Amino acid sequence: MFNSSVIEEEFSSRIQKVQKLLQNDQRDGVLVFSTESEPYGVRYFADYWPSFETTGVLIPREGEVSLLIGPESLTYAQGHSKVKNIIRMKDFRESSQPDYPGSKLATWEDVLSQHKIKKLGIAGWHMFPYAIMHNLEAAISKANISDADQLIRQVTLKKSPVEQACLRKAAKISELGFKAVLEQIRPGMTEIQLAGIAAGAMLANGAEATGYPIWCCSGPNSIQAISRPTHRKVKRGEIIHFSVGAKVEGYSASLGRPVVLGKCPLETRKFLQVGLDAENMTIDLMQAGTPASEVAKQVHAAITNRGYGKAILYGPAHGCGQMECEYPFIETSSQFILEENMTFMVDIFLAQDTMGFRFEDGVIIRKGAPEVLSSYKRKLNILEV
Amino acid sequence: MFNSSVIEEEFSSRIQKVQKLLQNDQRDGVLVFSTESEPYGVRYFADYWPSFETTGVLIPREGEVSLLIGPESLTYAQGHSKVKNIIRMKDFRESSQPDYPGSKLATWEDVLSQHKIKKLGIAGWHMFPYAIMHNLEAAISKANISDADQLIRQVTLKKSPVEQACLRKAAKISELGFKAVLEQIRPGMTEIQLAGIAAGAMLANGAEATGYPIWCCSGPNSIQAISRPTHRKVKRGEIIHFSVGAKVEGYSASLGRPVVLGKCPLETRKFLQVGLDAENMTIDLMQAGTPASEVAKQVHAAITNRGYGKAILYGPAHGCGQMECEYPFIETSSQFILEENMTFMVDIFLAQDTMGFRFEDGVIIRKGAPEVLSSYKRKLNILEV
Repeated sequence: MFNSSVIEEEFSSRIQKVQKLLQNDQRDGVLVFSTESEPYGVRYFADYWPSFETTGVLIPREGEVSLLIGPESLTYAQGHSKVKNIIRMKDFRESSQPDYPGSKLATWEDVLSQHKIKKLGIAGWHMFPYAIMHNLEAAISKANISDADQLIRQVTLKKSPVEQACLRKAAKISELGFKAVLEQIRPGMTEIQLAGIAAGAMLANGAEATGYPIWCCSGPNSIQAISRPTHRKVKRGEIIHFSVGAKVEGYSASLGRPVVLGKCPLETRKFLQVGLDAENMTIDLMQAGTPASEVAKQVHAAITNRGYGKAILYGPAHGCGQMECEYPFIETSSQFILEENMTFMVDIFLAQDTMGFRFEDGVIIRKGAPEVLSSYKRKLNILEV
Repeated sequence: MFNSSVIEEEFSSRIQKVQKLLQNDQRDGVLVFSTESEPYGVRYFADYWPSFETTGVLIPREGEVSLLIGPESLTYAQGHSKVKNIIRMKDFRESSQPDYPGSKLATWEDVLSQHKIKKLGIAGWHMFPYAIMHNLEAAISKANISDADQLIRQVTLKKSPVEQACLRKAAKISELGFKAVLEQIRPGMTEIQLAGIAAGAMLANGAEATGYPIWCCSGPNSIQAISRPTHRKVKRGEIIHFSVGAKVEGYSASLGRPVVLGKCPLETRKFLQVGLDAENMTIDLMQAGTPASEVAKQVHAAITNRGYGKAILYGPAHGCGQMECEYPFIETSSQFILEENMTFMVDIFLAQDTMGFRFEDGVIIRKGAPEVLSSYKRKLNILEV
């Protein structure tokens, strides 16, 4: 989508922003930690996405940045990483915990002294392993290690034109995944088959992967806010809901839509309409300058006023970028103001008794109405099949 | 594959084995921790596979076991978990870190006292988050928390008939994924397309998911031991290697095969033959009673004697089960003896200069020759297309 000089500039500017913030920080550097299922962070700074092993990017206040990897990923990382100094460490090995006899692996003492780091911040704090922290503490003591998520978020929170373009493309490909489902869905197909159709269509249309483990959940399974598809066969007259998302250049979007095959019971139609109206209301409210909590309060009040307050689990929106769901959430307790170039998934999930569904679309915050990333027919999908 | 009473018995016997080991252990219980990309452990005891959020199974020495989940997964967990007591905790929330205002979530004090736990073991130690450990330590102090991986491995290391059946089926479906590739591969197709063909065929044939992020890597990418497929187009005369694995009921297998389209250069053919011979030699050596290190030493010596010692990165085999790659590795430094009903992936990865490849097949250790799970044509795949 972009020529290589734009991409080089994008990645080097991300590092520079962190190094600039470190000029006014007590810490000498930040270690950004990522895993296979939580790849943001390292992907953001190095364009590297680990598999089996884990990884970190070490950004010192000044000087060369390093990618830290496990023993088996050197050639993979060399093929993908924008950070060219790559260091292999045992702490990032895979969970099967091989010894790799004879391999030369760096220690924390080596790595921290090479980067002149005595005080270290860690991003990805909530998932940073205790076992690695233990080894780090032996090298620089606990008092010199602290949570750096807030520092990194100052850089990642608003999305650049390159990032917005990736999200737009991910949303467009997600639509193609859902479109393939709408064309092929028939009663008697399994949830796994239907999720497979969506995934296949996205991969065939330029997705590098699915944005997360996508799902279709139907009938009694429809009340699952997070789910995985099963071998259950979908039926006429029940809610079948889809969370379909593509990943493009590390950026993940999602499209959430319920589908009903054949005749839709009146009670179901009424419930779905509450969700669709809530999604449209949320999109209308999301403008630069609006407190996030105000959006949540107004949308949840509207749902509650129509008698469905107990069907609310969270939301009505959450950040998106390299994770389909990333910081920050828009909740009634949110403490921030919406700003231009923040990106969110509007995510209306409602469930009660045996019925649930999700309407979900991405938006980019603008001064006026937000830019809607995916707008594939925001309507009730009741199909005559 | 099995009726529900066999499955119920399988899961309850797993818990009972841990509780029996705890009778002779200082600890009052074990917390088994799992994530989306490292789901073994919780999947083993509860048949629950988290997505977005993380999870734990808390097994006390006596009394009821609990599944610990994040705030959004209750209905999903209720639909899948064999452990019926389910507790929601903020520590297992997703990485976007919502507040969930108004939600009633349990604290560690609640959970530990309910299960009468004063000394706690943790399995999944290497990935257990520092942030959760911090909260746990506030509830029962650091001195009362220890690594319980070895305790859990006493239960998980040898595979039951149910587990072996799942691995057999996963291997069979992996073969179907690779077979679809062999039927459809043509020069000019991209690595992502080819990996998509394999994934699609596996999902259509009963896989619940891929066993790991599967790949095809070609030409200069073929030297990557761990990889992800790219948009590179495959060509005639180069090595194109496939790591294709299906997941069935939580169990992951893999089939590793190199492919060459059209004419295969003599040097390439010679290199591939060394790998194929090494795989066959490894399988022949893997019998109950043999020290694991002996297998590694003999196979690595044979490769080295043919002049390819520098092409060795690891191996020649690793455990398999709920992870395609799980403890223990067979290495020259291994300290264990092969025993009946242990399961491994024989995994010969060789790479040097610009060429690399993998031959990989699963085996179950027997008294004599091992049972080979996938034996799809252990040969050089040189295709006339």
